[in-house]
Amino acid sequence: MPHVSDFQVREGFDRTKGSLSKQLAAQIRRQIEAGDMAPGDRIPATRQLAKDLGLSRGTVTTAVEILLAEGVLAARVGAGTFVASDASSSALLPSRKRAPKFEFVSRAIEPDIDQKTNSKVDFRPCRPSLETFPLNTWRRCVSQAASAVPDSDYGDPLGNVRLRDEVVSYLRRARGMQVDPDQIIITNGAVHAMYLLSNLCLDRGRSAVFEDPGYPLARQVFSRTGAEMLFAPIDENGMQLDRLDEARLPPGLVYVTPSHQFPVGSRLSLGRRAELVSWAEKHGALIVEDDYDGEFRFDVPPLTPLAAMAPHQVVYCGTFSKTMFPGLRIGFAVADKSIVNAMASLRGVAEYAPSEPLQLALSKFIGLGEYERHILRTRRLYAAKRNCVADLLHPQAKLTGLESGLSGLIELPATVSAAEISARLEGQEILIPDVKKYVVGEAKQRNALVCGYAEPTLKQIDQGLRAVNAELERF
Amino acid sequence: MPHVSDFQVREGFDRTKGSLSKQLAAQIRRQIEAGDMAPGDRIPATRQLAKDLGLSRGTVTTAVEILLAEGVLAARVGAGTFVASDASSSALLPSRKRAPKFEFVSRAIEPDIDQKTNSKVDFRPCRPSLETFPLNTWRRCVSQAASAVPDSDYGDPLGNVRLRDEVVSYLRRARGMQVDPDQIIITNGAVHAMYLLSNLCLDRGRSAVFEDPGYPLARQVFSRTGAEMLFAPIDENGMQLDRLDEARLPPGLVYVTPSHQFPVGSRLSLGRRAELVSWAEKHGALIVEDDYDGEFRFDVPPLTPLAAMAPHQVVYCGTFSKTMFPGLRIGFAVADKSIVNAMASLRGVAEYAPSEPLQLALSKFIGLGEYERHILRTRRLYAAKRNCVADLLHPQAKLTGLESGLSGLIELPATVSAAEISARLEGQEILIPDVKKYVVGEAKQRNALVCGYAEPTLKQIDQGLRAVNAELERF
Repeated sequence: MPHVSDFQVREGFDRTKGSLSKQLAAQIRRQIEAGDMAPGDRIPATRQLAKDLGLSRGTVTTAVEILLAEGVLAARVGAGTFVASDASSSALLPSRKRAPKFEFVSRAIEPDIDQKTNSKVDFRPCRPSLETFPLNTWRRCVSQAASAVPDSDYGDPLGNVRLRDEVVSYLRRARGMQVDPDQIIITNGAVHAMYLLSNLCLDRGRSAVFEDPGYPLARQVFSRTGAEMLFAPIDENGMQLDRLDEARLPPGLVYVTPSHQFPVGSRLSLGRRAELVSWAEKHGALIVEDDYDGEFRFDVPPLTPLAAMAPHQVVYCGTFSKTMFPGLRIGFAVADKSIVNAMASLRGVAEYAPSEPLQLALSKFIGLGEYERHILRTRRLYAAKRNCVADLLHPQAKLTGLESGLSGLIELPATVSAAEISARLEGQEILIPDVKKYVVGEAKQRNALVCGYAEPTLKQIDQGLRAVNAELERF
Repeated sequence: MPHVSDFQVREGFDRTKGSLSKQLAAQIRRQIEAGDMAPGDRIPATRQLAKDLGLSRGTVTTAVEILLAEGVLAARVGAGTFVASDASSSALLPSRKRAPKFEFVSRAIEPDIDQKTNSKVDFRPCRPSLETFPLNTWRRCVSQAASAVPDSDYGDPLGNVRLRDEVVSYLRRARGMQVDPDQIIITNGAVHAMYLLSNLCLDRGRSAVFEDPGYPLARQVFSRTGAEMLFAPIDENGMQLDRLDEARLPPGLVYVTPSHQFPVGSRLSLGRRAELVSWAEKHGALIVEDDYDGEFRFDVPPLTPLAAMAPHQVVYCGTFSKTMFPGLRIGFAVADKSIVNAMASLRGVAEYAPSEPLQLALSKFIGLGEYERHILRTRRLYAAKRNCVADLLHPQAKLTGLESGLSGLIELPATVSAAEISARLEGQEILIPDVKKYVVGEAKQRNALVCGYAEPTLKQIDQGLRAVNAELERF
């Protein structure tokens, strides 16, 4: 049995380095690790130890308590305190090993997400302007939502019912959709809806139809399931449907941006809408309608969403990323109850439910009418910006896809390379992506720049377009 | 070619039923659908139509524009407006079909989530009290966070760097962990971290070790991957390790609640910690350390997290659900950079990034020291509640697992049935779950109630415990 002398201090105590009791515990731990004390060895009384070490009794008692709690020491009633029998010395200190390489079962794919930059002019698509955002009203809504004592519950995987109610009213007013709150799930943005749907509808035994060019992150969401990917080319009437039956495997879902094809900007014609719906009905495939910027139309009346034509076959995905701001990460999906419930179950085992406070703030904001007022304001602003792009653009280039949405396509003559122009402008800190960034297959022959005109100010648009024109002049 | 007479109104217009132009467009659509008008048929001039129908010219023009935009009608310059050649009649109106039954590729599992109730006393575990929540300070933080103009970016899949910095400082102060911000990912609660990890580490070719009894939602997160599940029984030293090698398939991860086993309440002894780490290192398995209520300790000093012992082998999952409130849906995971980055990539293709405004509010709240002050306040409150439970409980029953956390175990004598007591109390609107709710395998012989004492007020605890005791008296 070890005597008090066995606890000789080997290292000094340093009051500037934090708690003395932790320092003492660490020293005892190291002595056990070094084999200086063995399992079953008795520890001297704290009073004695304190005296020997010149520390207060409280300090020693706390150190012993730490080691008791850690299981390094064990107490037996009436017998004292001992080095625990399972105080194996091997791992008492942090492992100094190098990080092992874990073999993940899924290949990690780098998500195709636009990084934050400090560019001078940023024409990358899907970026709203915050110039006219009613910040004070929003802050008031957020503050009001944070005024109620939160409750002890974890929330509803479908989302807060007040926000779902507001979305129902909004869809009725703005999109002519008649839906119930239990047909709505609040998502963490539109991509989240696609992610949940991809997990429900796709695997290695199914195929998915995607647009080409199309939204890269959505393509990744679907392709990561291992599904066979079929790419449908885009023309001025939206997605071409003549090759839908070329997939080898049964189709699980079709992804489409019918109001404003991303990034080309065309609208899916009604004829094709009807054809797509009957094809999906025939094959039992779900249509995922991504209405990512459908709130913004300029010279044309609204098109009824696909979801209003075939409510049982379509999941309508909406987002507040463009109408509010992307960092809010709130969107919603509308679908048949069975589908919405399956999405909610999946979300439940992934994260329980969406965050409450911002859902409440957003429902207040919509309820006050501020949401639609803000959309009207930004629609006017974006129309002005769109006109600015159209007025300034060099006549050699052709601007298309401007009827709605937050971006258009600058189609270039064959003598000019979109890739080169995009790269040179990036050198000048002007970001305007080559459409080929969004292309997978045959659409590679497209020669165009994607011009998101919502976020840059009118002055930046002027600056940016002058730079684009100067590059066009070089050819 | 149809004449004006072909556009006879078949249904009346009703100004109380919304826009007249929409009603007219719907009627024209129906007539095309009924075959009364065929592709290529010419539409009369809007002026004429307005006169014939007794509507304003603007109304008619808007109706025609709607149908043009839908592609039902087509305009040819100088020739007028026609029924479009692809205005297939089949799907112009919402499908009246019954909802088809989609065959989802994954079996939908109903997540095991505690539903919101209006019970009189709620002893269900994992529910914090909001009695001492500093609502005004929190609202101020939220309001300040909402005062800055949001930006046009989508955020970082790792989470806001200011919040990660605050978590780093907090972990250093409170848990003795030395980590960098790039070892942290902000998650949508702790379950979200487990979900991401389960997708990285588990599939049908791997096994997972889980605690029995254990946290049901986490079990679902792991088992939904199809991994072989191995259930390790719990004793007073936490998870038993002697059967870890019984899995048929190579282990992907081990889930453990070392600070306060859920729901039994024991702490994993240091000996077992060391053994678990070496086992995981040997098999290349990740340890998922769920520190779901580690902030709350009462009579014992803190135990170093597993993650501090073996930083490369462990993912430490923390949550603000218990220290703040569950509806916040913010948690974090700490791990080796390679693991955190793989988690971020996966989250990127699922939802881009977490919501910005609440991350900012929470980082302010922590930065002000309010978070730790609130933890101290609730720790005192919970200690009082715990003592209240211990004082009131019938001597026939034994209270264990109270050294830390927000819940304890009421172990019952063999003559008394936990299931019956729990059911009878539910009839009195007193929720106190039978431990078997959390049990999978052999732990079925346990006869105990799980008593979450954090959320109920002292008065409710008094009321609830009296009811528990009355039931105990009946046996």
